[in-house]
Amino acid sequence: MKLIRFGEAGFEKPGVIIGDEYYDVSALVSDYDEAFFGGDALHKLSEDIKTTNLPKVDRGVRLGPALARPSKIICVGLNYKDHAAETNAAIPTEPILFFKATSAIVGPNDDLIIPKNSKKTDWEVELAIVIGKKASYVTEENALEHIAGYVLHNDYSERAFQLERNGQWVKGKSCDTFAPIGPFIATQDEISDVHNLRLWLTVNGKTLQNGNTSNLIFNVPFMVSYISQFMTLLPGDVITTGTPAGVGLGQKPEPWYLKDGDVVELGIDGLGSSKQHVKAYTEA
Amino acid sequence: MKLIRFGEAGFEKPGVIIGDEYYDVSALVSDYDEAFFGGDALHKLSEDIKTTNLPKVDRGVRLGPALARPSKIICVGLNYKDHAAETNAAIPTEPILFFKATSAIVGPNDDLIIPKNSKKTDWEVELAIVIGKKASYVTEENALEHIAGYVLHNDYSERAFQLERNGQWVKGKSCDTFAPIGPFIATQDEISDVHNLRLWLTVNGKTLQNGNTSNLIFNVPFMVSYISQFMTLLPGDVITTGTPAGVGLGQKPEPWYLKDGDVVELGIDGLGSSKQHVKAYTEA
Repeated sequence: MKLIRFGEAGFEKPGVIIGDEYYDVSALVSDYDEAFFGGDALHKLSEDIKTTNLPKVDRGVRLGPALARPSKIICVGLNYKDHAAETNAAIPTEPILFFKATSAIVGPNDDLIIPKNSKKTDWEVELAIVIGKKASYVTEENALEHIAGYVLHNDYSERAFQLERNGQWVKGKSCDTFAPIGPFIATQDEISDVHNLRLWLTVNGKTLQNGNTSNLIFNVPFMVSYISQFMTLLPGDVITTGTPAGVGLGQKPEPWYLKDGDVVELGIDGLGSSKQHVKAYTEA
Repeated sequence: MKLIRFGEAGFEKPGVIIGDEYYDVSALVSDYDEAFFGGDALHKLSEDIKTTNLPKVDRGVRLGPALARPSKIICVGLNYKDHAAETNAAIPTEPILFFKATSAIVGPNDDLIIPKNSKKTDWEVELAIVIGKKASYVTEENALEHIAGYVLHNDYSERAFQLERNGQWVKGKSCDTFAPIGPFIATQDEISDVHNLRLWLTVNGKTLQNGNTSNLIFNVPFMVSYISQFMTLLPGDVITTGTPAGVGLGQKPEPWYLKDGDVVELGIDGLGSSKQHVKAYTEA
């Protein structure tokens, strides 16, 4: 299944994509949230949509984040060798974890707002994992049972806030609009090999990131198992798995960053694409 | 007002403390959550309890976390000079921010479970701020308007996970049971001077932390304003403001940490006290 949420920000309804069409499933489930992912609702929905006459939704509708606000977004840092190299960082010997505020979540095609006082707003195309079953001290062998699906994410990062403002990366990762999640969650059965997906990102049409999840340093089951040794993953929680080379910070001869009017597009095989128009912050 | 949540874990009801008694206010409000703090409900509750005959609750009841799960817990690191000194860290020139997973939240007197493979589980008595009104780019002058109240918090920390496992402190801050929050939220009007509160912590009856919020490096309005430059604070969000000297990591001649059977008690002037029995992790 491909799960979407559509409608006005803050009032999204759950839907599914079947073929090329969007369908409203709000008569069947209330939202894609912790209760939905943690119970039997995902499986039940996959059965119910076969026998229900679902209302079609106009393809021009706004897509919201593909899931309701999770308890947390756990990010894995420097998980592609080429990205570690371009940022002059050592290859991690075990995963680096950091958090991103869930208040940063927006729809996949919503505007990216450059924060006030930002000079270094940067992009990061990433494969994100959506947890399907509470995970505490799970083994690598059992990790896949705890995954509901996968989704495209742009882990926007303000590099000065992250690296030059007295430590802990969360400061540069949590600004509003810094987490466009979507267009859709693909359930596990939709993705034949999660470790062989091309992921790409362009700015104003120019390709800057062009990687493959086959180059992940720590793979999907390892990450789920590893994180679950330090905290409990709840249904609906998001793990975002790191970005390949080609971010602004890694540009040669000089790093460069986003500015008002830029257009960022990104995608992953089997997980669709998203597009953010970059806007300068303006006082409300 | 003093807000409590009481009852079985996961099924807590909202209540208030009046004098020495607990009262059930679940007929007046559904929970102390984002909607409650963000709207007019706090003010309305303060009026309603004057004219409503509230059911009394037995004082032996379990207290839950004093608020429903917030969108985030933002922690300020090394915010007392004596604590920075004991951990051999530099005095921060601007606040160090990190997150704690909200899945770590428990009631004030629930057991502290030492995580699997932990050898360095440590304590940190802290004053926590509860946000009352959405805060984005607020000034220091206006910061207090965005606060609902204050609450006692023990920012439990696994020092090896935090400092020796390849970076970003969140890894040592997010284990289950690492965030006992309570006994109660005191609304702002209950606290005459938030910058002159004694805070203390004992292990097995021995006083180890004995500080005062007058020694905070960055004060309450500054922290709210500062954090709001990097992310939006939502109603019900928790900011935990750092710990004074006396943690396990700072003990002389050698650091020492918690073990099965220990009892941790802590308190802050005007915010009550809490008590955690320390238990080793056992397989479920």
